[in-house]
Formats: sequence, structure tokens, C-alpha cells
Amino acid sequence: MKILITGGAGFLGQRLARRLLERGELDGKPISELVLLDVVRAADFGDKRVRAETGDIADRSVLERAIDTDTQAIFHLAAIVSGQAEADFELGMRINLDASRLLLEVCRARGHAPRVLFTSSVAVYGGTLPDVVQDDTALNPQSSYGTQKAIAELLLSDYARRGFVDGRVVRLPTISVRPGKPNAAASSFASGIIREPLNGERAVCPVDGETRLWLLSPKSAIEALIAGCEIDRAALGNRPVVNLPGLSVSVNEMVAALREVAGEEAVARIDWQRDERVEKIVGSWPGAWDTKRAEQLGLKGDKTFADVIRAYIADERA
Amino acid sequence: MKILITGGAGFLGQRLARRLLERGELDGKPISELVLLDVVRAADFGDKRVRAETGDIADRSVLERAIDTDTQAIFHLAAIVSGQAEADFELGMRINLDASRLLLEVCRARGHAPRVLFTSSVAVYGGTLPDVVQDDTALNPQSSYGTQKAIAELLLSDYARRGFVDGRVVRLPTISVRPGKPNAAASSFASGIIREPLNGERAVCPVDGETRLWLLSPKSAIEALIAGCEIDRAALGNRPVVNLPGLSVSVNEMVAALREVAGEEAVARIDWQRDERVEKIVGSWPGAWDTKRAEQLGLKGDKTFADVIRAYIADERA
Repeated sequence: MKILITGGAGFLGQRLARRLLERGELDGKPISELVLLDVVRAADFGDKRVRAETGDIADRSVLERAIDTDTQAIFHLAAIVSGQAEADFELGMRINLDASRLLLEVCRARGHAPRVLFTSSVAVYGGTLPDVVQDDTALNPQSSYGTQKAIAELLLSDYARRGFVDGRVVRLPTISVRPGKPNAAASSFASGIIREPLNGERAVCPVDGETRLWLLSPKSAIEALIAGCEIDRAALGNRPVVNLPGLSVSVNEMVAALREVAGEEAVARIDWQRDERVEKIVGSWPGAWDTKRAEQLGLKGDKTFADVIRAYIADERA
Repeated sequence: MKILITGGAGFLGQRLARRLLERGELDGKPISELVLLDVVRAADFGDKRVRAETGDIADRSVLERAIDTDTQAIFHLAAIVSGQAEADFELGMRINLDASRLLLEVCRARGHAPRVLFTSSVAVYGGTLPDVVQDDTALNPQSSYGTQKAIAELLLSDYARRGFVDGRVVRLPTISVRPGKPNAAASSFASGIIREPLNGERAVCPVDGETRLWLLSPKSAIEALIAGCEIDRAALGNRPVVNLPGLSVSVNEMVAALREVAGEEAVARIDWQRDERVEKIVGSWPGAWDTKRAEQLGLKGDKTFADVIRAYIADERA
């Protein structure tokens, strides 16, 4: 089977690609070609199955080059992150909404109803929320990013209902710990306050310690993307959107886990400087959601945040 | 103030226009101009305040002609109805989604944040629903029309949050009794089974008598559109979407009301012929939703369906 990953040069895209190549199959079918589409050239790991394509995903001809009737699975990871979509409204609309719709349109035109997985986010929720968000809690995004993700969910659901694609959406918790540099996501600090102190660098925590986050490690996220793509369509019923399991932890609990793993010295590298812009966006997200449905569908999260930190350290050393 | 009604030649558009002209003011400000935009020329009632504009609402230049910085209120009623949006996917997307977004974009470009009211629908709900839908029940539309309306709600909410428009959305129950001819809405029968028998004509009821509908009379709908537009923005908080009060009645109860008002002779003109396509769409809609919030905001529905029929008869005679 031929697979496409949009955002294939990104952090999750590259990890997903490596994991798929290592597995060699998806849904029991051998992977013959893996197309990694991004604005910058994706690493191909010297693997002959990989074809790196560069181009603007909001350009139809780019998507037409990346998707043909042999493309049997599409992981759509390309996105403008929350902070950037809030700062640049038009860019967010163009990539998070228009490109997602265009991808569905190209699939519809091809006519072979490929499996299409969209990633969505905690940011689709907002406003007054229960302590634990339920599957049937209304979406009320309080950011343009959350709005664009909610719209993409609705589009995919309708295209799936009409049989244009075999669609599914997994809503990701905030991913932590991400390696590398801070990014423009409002949740960037959720990795930064762990990663930078471990690297001997200072990190700013822009929210109150009581702020509750809903977290998933990169490794569990990749496994969930693959499992989400492999779910049988019938098991999803009339609701192709699934909230992935996460860990509900306060920022103070994250810091306690950092202390447990790396000592007081690491914790002392965090500067607490509240930033109203970040607090407003992150504070509108749920700190936990009910995960019964995801578990029934075979999707898994992490056990403890200290374990997540330990796995991050082991990964970075490797 | 200058007001725009899109779909101004339509059934609700014409009624709203007449009511606004009769009132002479909106939100305490005298109405100087009322622009009625539609694909066909709207009646101007011989009133000098009315300007009828014709054009394709998905064409930006048409909207730019209709909206200027003096346009202080916009009632966006233009839409492709549910049955037609299901039959013609591209047309539904073009009018219900693209034109709604374009309207918001033209307002954003004008920069004066006019009051914009979108109408949405019971069709945004679907799947497994509680007997009475709550304000925080998740949207799960089971039709392309419902999907497009849900997306337009999300877009308007984000444009309002960012201050591009002073936006609000009223979710309309199914409107009954509509005068005139059947249309391509899946709910067309909800008027037809009353209207046609009253006119001495036969009508087909395509759903089971136990099917529960959530209804609003045209007169109450018009009053709710005006009241919805006049709600103070602060009262809406971070949720500009309001479910309007309706009457929860089964089709059998509608028929009983027809019997009460017009006798067995009228009821005998209904042919019961189930239509799976209509049942599937209408059956996915809620039969009632909680109306506490709407009532707190001063919005009202109807008392009994027999009264609604009597009001329809009186209106048609006038």
C-alpha cells in the first residue's frame, strides 16, 4: 500500500514515518511507498520506499501530485500551531481549514475513498467545561486554531458519511515532552519546562502551577495515530472522532515529576512568568476527558508523567 | 441604520423585511435603508427605504455591493435547504459554507464590526441524542446541510471572538406552517401535511406518526430573528449561538391539532407513505432542546400547535 503523510518533515511526521517503515505494514498490508509531503524537504532515512515531496499543501496541484488512486492511507498532520494561527488569522485559515478541505476534495475527485486520518486537538473545547469532558460535550473553541480544527473534524465527518473517504479523526492531548526547540504553539511550554531544565537551560512557565493539562507522550501519540488509522470503520459508528487517552496533570505535578527524575537543580531552572495571552488560550482547554470510547477502540495513553520524562531522556540519549 | 437581509426574496426574508419596515427601527435606531439581496429580485413593497439587489451571494463583488461601512445589521438567511444540499453536495458547500464565510470576510475587510445574525438549524444535531438536547450537547450533524450550518456557526463565533463582527447565531426549529408550495427541505412535509389539507389538497406524510418534531411558527421565527439581533453582545458571553424555543410535537399530535382546527375531512387528505431518505435526515434531528438560555435572553416560542394552525389560517385569509 501507498501511504501519504502531510507535514511529513515535522516532528510527529518524521517519527510516524520511521515507525511505519520499521513496521513495514499498515492494517496488515505491506507498505510499498511512503510519501512525505511538507513545505521543506523531509528526511527519507535512506529508505527506497520513501518519496519526499515539497510544496504548499494549500495548492491543489501539490496534493494531486501526492495523492493518486493507489494512495490507500493518508495521515494529515500538516498544521499551523495554535499561537501562530491566533497571530496570523489568514495563514491559519489557509492551512488548517482550506488545505484540509482541499485534501478531502482531491480524495473525492480520485473516487477511491482512501483511509484518511485527521489529527485534532484539545483546543476544540472551551468555555465552561465539566472537570472531565465527555464524548458528547459540545465544542466551543476559544481560539482560531481550535475553530479551524473543529471545522476540519466536521468536514471529514461529512465526507466520510457520504463515502468520499474512509475518515477518522483523533483528538490529541497536548504532546509532551517534545524534543528540539520551543515553537509557536500556546502549549510550547508544556515541553519547554521539562526539556530545557534537563538540558541545563532556563525555561519560562507562562501559566499558574494549578493549570491542569491533558498530556500524551510523542511515543504514545505515534502508536495512537497508527491504531486510529487501523480502526475498523464500522467500530466508529456515526462518530468518526475519537478523544485519545491522556494524562491529567497540573503544571505543579509536572514539576514534581521533573524533581523526581532530575532533582531540585533542574526544577530551579524554571522561571515563573505568567503570560496572559498563553493563559487565556491554554486555560480554555480541558484538563481531562473521558477515555472509555478510545479504550474500547484499543487506543492507549501513558501511565505516569515521570515515566514520560524518563522515556524522553532515554530517547534523546539514543 | 442600514440593514442587509440575504435571501431577502425568500419566505422568511420577505416577512422579516415587512416586519422591520413596519417597526421602522432596530435596536432603537431608525432604519434608513433595507437592502434585500437574493438571486431573484425581492419585492420592495413600494417602500423607498428598500433597495433590492440581485446576484450570486457566493460572488464577493455582490457582497461588496451589498455591504458598506454604514451597514449596521446583517440578517444572513440565504441558504440551500437540507434535501437539496444532500442531493447537490457542491451547491450546498458553495452557498451554505463558502458564501457565509465570504460574508464574514467582507465584513472583516470593511472593518466596522457590524451586527451579523446567522440562522442555524436543528440539523446541526444528530446521532445518539438525549430526549431534550442541552446547550452543551455536542453537534454531530448527519447531513451535509447540518454540517455546513455547524461550520458556519463556528466561523461566526471565531469572527465574533476576534472582534471582526458583532455576531450571533439563532438555531431555528423546523418552521411550520410555511405558506406556498413544498420545497426541497427534508422537513417540507411538516408544513405540507397541514397546508395542503387546509387547501383541500392531498399531502404525503413521509415519516412515522411517532416522529417527534421541534417546531416554530413563521411569526414567532421573525420575532426571534429581530430579538436575536437586538440581544446585547455581553449577554451572550463566549457562546454566541442560541437555541430558539420551539414546540415539541409528534406528527400524530400535529395531525390531532389539524383535526381540532379543521376536522376529520382535512385529516383524511393525508397519505402516509414512508420515505427512507426523508426519515433518515429528519429522524436524526432532536425533538426538543432545553430553552432556558433563550428564555433568559428574552426569546419566545409558540404556545400550542393548534394556535399555530389558527394563526396560519388567519394570515392566509388576510
